[in-house]
Parts: sequence; structure tokens; C-alpha cells
Amino acid sequence: MMQIPLSVGSMLEHAEKFFPKKQVISQTHDKLHHLTYAEVGKRTRRLMSVLNELGAKKGDKIGTLAWNHHRHLEVYFAAPGIGAVLHTINIRLAPEHIIYIINHAEDKILFIDEDILPLIEKIKDQLKTVEAFVVMTDKNEKPDSALKPLYSYEELLHTGDPTYPFSTDIDENQPAGMCYTSATTGKPKGVIYSHRGIVLHSFALGLADSAAISESDVSMPVVPQFHVNAWGTPFACTWFGSTQVMPGPRFTPKLLAEFIDRFKVTITAGVPTIWLGLLRELEQGNYDTSSLRAVLCGGSAAPLGLIKAFEQKLKIPFYHAYGATETTPLVTVSRLKSYQLDLTEDEKLKERSRQGILVPGVEMKVIGNNGEVEWNDEEMGELLLRGNWIASEYYNDDRTDSAFADGWFHTGDVVTVDEEGTIKIVDRTKDLIKSGGEWISSVDLENALMAHEAVFEASVIAIPDAQWQERPVACVVLKEDYSESGMKEKLLEFLHPQFAKFWIPDDVLFFEEIPKTSVGKFLKRQLREDVKARYSVQE
Amino acid sequence: MMQIPLSVGSMLEHAEKFFPKKQVISQTHDKLHHLTYAEVGKRTRRLMSVLNELGAKKGDKIGTLAWNHHRHLEVYFAAPGIGAVLHTINIRLAPEHIIYIINHAEDKILFIDEDILPLIEKIKDQLKTVEAFVVMTDKNEKPDSALKPLYSYEELLHTGDPTYPFSTDIDENQPAGMCYTSATTGKPKGVIYSHRGIVLHSFALGLADSAAISESDVSMPVVPQFHVNAWGTPFACTWFGSTQVMPGPRFTPKLLAEFIDRFKVTITAGVPTIWLGLLRELEQGNYDTSSLRAVLCGGSAAPLGLIKAFEQKLKIPFYHAYGATETTPLVTVSRLKSYQLDLTEDEKLKERSRQGILVPGVEMKVIGNNGEVEWNDEEMGELLLRGNWIASEYYNDDRTDSAFADGWFHTGDVVTVDEEGTIKIVDRTKDLIKSGGEWISSVDLENALMAHEAVFEASVIAIPDAQWQERPVACVVLKEDYSESGMKEKLLEFLHPQFAKFWIPDDVLFFEEIPKTSVGKFLKRQLREDVKARYSVQE
Repeated sequence: MMQIPLSVGSMLEHAEKFFPKKQVISQTHDKLHHLTYAEVGKRTRRLMSVLNELGAKKGDKIGTLAWNHHRHLEVYFAAPGIGAVLHTINIRLAPEHIIYIINHAEDKILFIDEDILPLIEKIKDQLKTVEAFVVMTDKNEKPDSALKPLYSYEELLHTGDPTYPFSTDIDENQPAGMCYTSATTGKPKGVIYSHRGIVLHSFALGLADSAAISESDVSMPVVPQFHVNAWGTPFACTWFGSTQVMPGPRFTPKLLAEFIDRFKVTITAGVPTIWLGLLRELEQGNYDTSSLRAVLCGGSAAPLGLIKAFEQKLKIPFYHAYGATETTPLVTVSRLKSYQLDLTEDEKLKERSRQGILVPGVEMKVIGNNGEVEWNDEEMGELLLRGNWIASEYYNDDRTDSAFADGWFHTGDVVTVDEEGTIKIVDRTKDLIKSGGEWISSVDLENALMAHEAVFEASVIAIPDAQWQERPVACVVLKEDYSESGMKEKLLEFLHPQFAKFWIPDDVLFFEEIPKTSVGKFLKRQLREDVKARYSVQE
Repeated sequence: MMQIPLSVGSMLEHAEKFFPKKQVISQTHDKLHHLTYAEVGKRTRRLMSVLNELGAKKGDKIGTLAWNHHRHLEVYFAAPGIGAVLHTINIRLAPEHIIYIINHAEDKILFIDEDILPLIEKIKDQLKTVEAFVVMTDKNEKPDSALKPLYSYEELLHTGDPTYPFSTDIDENQPAGMCYTSATTGKPKGVIYSHRGIVLHSFALGLADSAAISESDVSMPVVPQFHVNAWGTPFACTWFGSTQVMPGPRFTPKLLAEFIDRFKVTITAGVPTIWLGLLRELEQGNYDTSSLRAVLCGGSAAPLGLIKAFEQKLKIPFYHAYGATETTPLVTVSRLKSYQLDLTEDEKLKERSRQGILVPGVEMKVIGNNGEVEWNDEEMGELLLRGNWIASEYYNDDRTDSAFADGWFHTGDVVTVDEEGTIKIVDRTKDLIKSGGEWISSVDLENALMAHEAVFEASVIAIPDAQWQERPVACVVLKEDYSESGMKEKLLEFLHPQFAKFWIPDDVLFFEEIPKTSVGKFLKRQLREDVKARYSVQE
């Protein structure tokens, strides 16, 4: 057999040749753009020649601080296309983390959205390796800025060569991309994506039983391009010739609903909080969502009520998926097996609310207190992963050893596995509540609470307990129409029949909002502080 | 990223874990077997330990002479599973070619179906490297045979270890399988399939826009497992957990129709002659074929009439595909792009009758008289291919140089490409008719003829011509109800409006049957001899 290096550039080349008329629809600050893959291809080639002119070399890190739009997509292919590394930076991180990330990765060039310029201007003096800034703007003239040297994306492209070739000097195991994941404590940790990993992951996204991404799809990734490559969808959708709809900066649930209706979006991907927002918008507004064949939900566990609302009320197929920054990220998708189609609606929903089974190409092990757990959906253990799109290390980071021991990535997620091999995330290892020697899943309690009609969001955390070591406390945001009065008792009563007695939280606290991470996950560390503060005020 | 070698064994391991209840339904000489993947997994592990006991080592060639059934499937995984090489041998080849193939590959062990034993007994003294024969029979006792040493498959398995591990000492580029392709002249040529090539090819078979093989599929490969690994479907279907239906030895169109009905087959794959036979059976019988979502047709060009009959008359989706022994084989699939769904039914059918566009992961070049051809569907050129499941050589064979020059596989197939990038096979380089300096496509003429209601099969060949160099002659098999009288004139009249005048064949000859290769393709070399003979009798 021939041995052709798997390469990111070859995916766009495939689209240029076979899907030149298909479109990328891109919302930027100023307007809505319609570009064909023929145009995206030429612009990416121009950008590669520009990167070359700016001195970018094989292995150099090219940083982006940008929303979901076509220019960001072009950098996705141009950076790895010249053998450099696409480094997407999470713009929602604290400035000190952004400084750390850019310096730690040693970014040489930064591509920045216009509205993010002020953020970078403030920290510019602390950036040690950046040699050029490029502002991604629709405007003809460059904005005034303290960043030097500052280039305008479109002006640069104007000077580029639309026939510039993708590098043929690619080793498939060389870095193509990188992304930092925020750690619970300490600095963010960098993950490197190889060409091989991205291409194999794209294959996995196209499989009939995973996301089944197809030429006939109109794909709108809501998950940001600055976070785990928007779950790899821009790569796969380009390769397979899907129409892509990129919702741009600071989108609202309303804009998402409008785009779904207007562009006949067939597949979209994002975290539960996005879908909670969209759900409210769809319930209030008058939108045609009949084109949607799949809403992919990952990042954190989707409450059953959310899945139910999409599937049964809105008639929109909703797929739970699981992954992490370290896993490119697709690891599992929750689909029923053919012989499960005879289950009752409730059984099916319960099954669909699990994180699902491994996509082909990844291996798992679940390690509990006594080695590998039984697949009985009761024994809990940490999920370990292995595969060609699973990271093997944190970039130049001491924390590699513990997370990647013995050739497996230790996810820190605690799961149970049922006899079908589908996993259910029951907690993070660090969030799991250890009460009287037994484990209590905060996630199970949260999902149960969020299935209550009055509850908008719920997060369950451990508080220290003299007798039991730890005890659960529920933190709840009520829906607008509900009052706190008597609600604590109602919620505890609601939980009682569903759980062993020792699982029932000791308290229910009400919040206006649950603190979240920059990518929409519950920030339990912060919440534990908040709860501690509240109790000490009471004392 | 981790670098985990892609391996054939890991695909069965995935099925053992995640699809243990799903079934392989297998017709052998004596009975119909139902096995689960859990059982197939254990039996394959037993077989690996047996192979080890028999002395098979990494790199050794394990030959099979067998039909489509579960034992053959087990060898598919067991041979590469221990690092050896699965060598499927085409049982329809002439004995001297089978001798050549077994000696040239240096097969160490042969797995043989009971009904093929006599063939091997006759040639046994000429086999230079075979150390053991294993008969794949349902019977308890071993048949009498001159082959020594002869083992019974089931007896051996009985002694095997059901927990024997798949080898972890696999380089993904090492050989996993091999298959010989018959050459127009000379000895068959060997093609080696690597672990990497087979796994990537399996990914391609699972893509939504190619074969979309899924857990929910019931797959019945009619294309033999002794030829290009039944187009790779046993590997992909196992990996993705599809139910597999294996029609066994010497199946008839009636058996295929019954199996489709009985087992609710969703996808099947084979060459046009198989589908011509099945079409007749389905038209005559009373079968429920509503479960079929895809009939994949490749190996040679399917006549438009065949596609039309399946799609419009039987309401069975029929997908034209293209590949070769050297290409594992999937290269193109003919599916409409989303924006082509507005075409008229006839336009769609015409588009669907093309071989389609490249599956992601393969690259092509089409080289005509003046370099790469325009994608205008007029300029003809030879199709060149490149990719991780395209062979890089013929095994220990001088003919490698011409077929694999410059890093591309020269297919010998002449195609046109339309502006959508879809290819249409117009001929074999050696079958193309060169008349007065212009090229005439024998395949186009054949397809046009086979669209005539009276024609069952048609093959067009070149005969030497003093003035024009070559001229086309049509060889036609009429359907049972039609007579030859006046038919030549009718057929030529039928062709006239469809082609330039110089394309119209000089003659139409009627045959009882068109000679075919062992895999169902027109044997034009033989036909040219037959036609020559017929003309010399006339003279």
C-alpha cells in the first residue's frame, strides 16, 4: 500500500476540487458573507503565502483570538497547510491566562477579531514572542491600535498568491493545532493536535453512526472555534463538502434560531447551556426548525429534561456526545442500537441521556476501586482513553505524568458502563461526593433536579462533614415563574423516591445564576466558595 | 497525540466489546449458522492460537480457498490478528493460475472449503510451500483426502484458546492481506493490503456519503470474500457492528432474493451480472425487498437499464461504485450532491449511472493525450490514483514499474470527468477503440445497447480496419423472447441518434453468452478471438 501522510491541507484540497460551489455562510461584525469553497480555497492559499511572507515556518505557532467565521476557518487550514500550528486561544479566559498561554505556546503571529483588539492591547507588553498582529476586520482601513506591527487580514490577502500550494513536507504526526484547557487549579494546560489525529477524527465525524456529516448537511457549529476546534466540525464539514453556517461574534439564541430557520441548518453542536437558551427562544418564537436532523450536545452532561424538550416537544433529534480538549474531542455518541428501538419511549430517552458508546478508533478502560469495573451500570470508575486522536501529553507541562500514565489518558471523569457498553458520566473524580465510604454522583442528582418543572439549572457540590466526611448540597436556579418559598422541601421530596437515602442532599440553596467556566461548564470550585461564604454569613 | 497502530484485529475487538449480541448469519454447505460477534470473537481467538500451534509466524501467508461464510470471516481476522497475512485465492481461476499464486505468495497454510478440496488435491504435488491444509466443513469427521497433513477446522478450534490475544506487535504498514488480480496476459499479479490501508478503507465505507455502513445494517456481501476481501465489507461491517448475512457456496439468485426477504437485508454489494440475475428473480418471484436501502454495484460499469430497473421498477436504491483489486477497492461512489436533487428524473439517473466522485482519502489525476484533462465530460484520459488504500506495487513482480509509475497507480481505465468531478468509465485503455485518430468508448456503446428492451447483454470490441485502424463491432445477447431476425438493423437504428456517425458499430453479432472473467467482467480478449473466428468462418 502507498503511505501518504494524512494532512489537514488535503481536506480543503478535496473540497476545492469536488465541492467548489458549496458555501460557507459567515456572520462577522459588519455583515453576512457567502463564500464558496472555491473562494475559501483561494483565500486560504493567499493566506499561506502571506504567512510565508511574514516569516512563519514549519512548527511555528499561529495564534487566533476569534469567533466562528470564515476568516477563522481559513487560518484553520492555512496554518497547518504550511506546516505551522494553528493555536486557537479561548478569548473568555482571564487576561493573565491568555498572557500565559501565548507566551507558553510561543505564538509568533496572532490573528485577532476587531472586538478583541482592546483585550490584547492591554496585555501587549507582556507578550514575549509575538512578531506580528493581524486584525480580522471587514473594514477597508486598519483600526487605530497600539499593537505593532499590525496588519489588516484583507489587505494582506490582497497581496497573497491564490495558487500557493499546500506544503507537501508534512509528517502526519507533526503538530497541526493546539488548544489550552483550563485546569481546576493552576495554569491552563496545552494540548497538541496532529495532522493524523485531526484527519482520523474527521473520518469518525463522518461515520453513519456518529455525526454522519455529509455533503447534504448545513452545519452550524455553535461551540466556539476557539475551543477544541469547534469539536473538529470545520475540518470534517469542509472535507465532506457540507454547507457551513458560522454564527460569528457574540451571537444570541435569537440569531441561532433565525439562522436555523433561514439557512435550513441540519446539524449543530454545542454545550447544554446553549441549548437551554435556544430552547427558551424556540418556545417563545415562531421558527421553522424542521431541517434539523441532529443537535449534538457535549461539554457537560445534558439534563434529561433538556433532551426530552428537544426530542418530544420540538421534535428535534438531540444527540448526547462526550469528549474533552484532550480528545479532539469526539469519544462517544449516544445513539440507540437497532435492537433497542423496541424499548418504550421512556426507556429510549433514558438510554439516549447516557453519553453513549465509543466511536470506532478509540479504546476505553474504566478503573474503579478494584481495577476494571463490571459493565453493570452500578460500579463507578474513572474513564481512561486511548487512540489516535487522544492527546499523549500536556505541552511542556509537568502535569503530563499523572494524566497520561501507562499510555492512557486519565479523563478525570467518573462513569458507569451498562451491558451495552454505553457510558454514563456520573461525576468528575474531584467532584464526586464521598459520604461514609460510599460514592455519590453529583451529576445524577443534578440531572434529577433539572428534571423538576421548577428548576432551570442545578449544581450539586460536596461540603465537608465531620461525621460522613462529605455531604451533598444542591444549588438551584429556579425558572422565572417559581418562588423559593417551600421549594426546598418540594425538591427534596421529589428526589426521595429516586435515590438511596444517603444520597439526598443535606440542603438546597437558591441562586440567581450558577457560576460557569468560559466554555459553559459549571464552575464547582467557585460554587463551593460561594456556598462556604453563604454558610459563614448564616453562622 | 498518541500514535496507536491501526490494526485489523482492533476492529473485531471493538465488535466483541460493543456489539457482542449482534449476529453473523452464515450459509455453509450443510446448514445455516447464527453466531454472535461474541462467538465469532472467541472462535477467532481460538483460531489465532491454532495458527500459532501450526507454526504460523508474523509475515507468513495464510491462503483461503473459500466462499462467503463465517469461518472465512474468522480467518479474515485471525491471520492478520497474529501478524500473518490473509491471502484470499480466487477459486474460479484456472488451476495453473492457482498453483502459480500459491507458490508465488509462498502460502504456508491453506484453508479450503470442502467442495474445493478436489481442485487442490489435483494440484497438490505442485504446491511448494504449503505445510498444512485445513478443511472448513460442518461435518464431525474429516473427509478422506490425499492432502497431508489435513486438519478439520472445527476440530482444531476445539483445541484452541478462546482468550488468545490479538498481537500487539503490529506495524500498521505491515501486510494484513493479499489478493491476486488476473492480468489480461500473463500470470496473475499480487496486491498487498496493509493494516493501515484496511482500517482507513473501513472508515471510508462507514462515511455517510459513501456506503454509510452502520450498526443498523444487515449486510449481505455477494461479491466473493475470495476477491478483494468482498470489497472490504466484512471488515467494516464487523467494526461497526452490522448484522452480516453470508450467502455461502454456489448461491443462486433465488437464494439471494430469499435471504433479502427473510433477513431484512439493508445493503448488499456485487457486480452487474449478479444484479442482472437478481433482477430477473425479483421480477418473477414474490419477495419483500423493502428493507434494502442500498445495492452497491461495481467491478464493471452497470448498464443504465439495470440501474433504472432497480430504482424505478423495484424501488431499490442502486449505487454505482468503482474500484479495483489494487484499490482495496472503494474509490468512487455515485451519489447526487444536494443541489442536484432538483434535476429531472432522467438527468438524475444519468448522473447516477456515472461512477461518481472520489471518497475522501483518495486522490485522482486523469491523464489524456495532452496532460491532465479538462473536467468537461468530453476529454478522455487514464485514471490515476493515490492514497492510503491504493497499492504501491505488485508483489515481487516486474509489472510494478509501468502500473505504479511516479507514485500513482495507473488504473488502465479511461474516464471522462464532468464539472462536478464525477468520473465516467468510458473504457479500458486496452479496449478503447481508436478509429481514424479519434477515440470511441466501447462502454458507452455497450450501455446504450443494453438500454434497448431486446438486449440482455452487450459487449463492443475493436476489430482491425485497413482504413480506420480500428472499427467497433457489437456482440449482443438477446433476451429470451426476442429473435435475431431484423434485430441488427433495429439496434443500429436505435444507436444512430445517440452517437456521432463514426461511433456506430460496423456490425452486430449475436451470441448465446458473452465470455466473462472469474469475477463476472466481460472477457474481451476471448470475445475478440470468438469474433475473429466467426468472421473467418464466414469468409
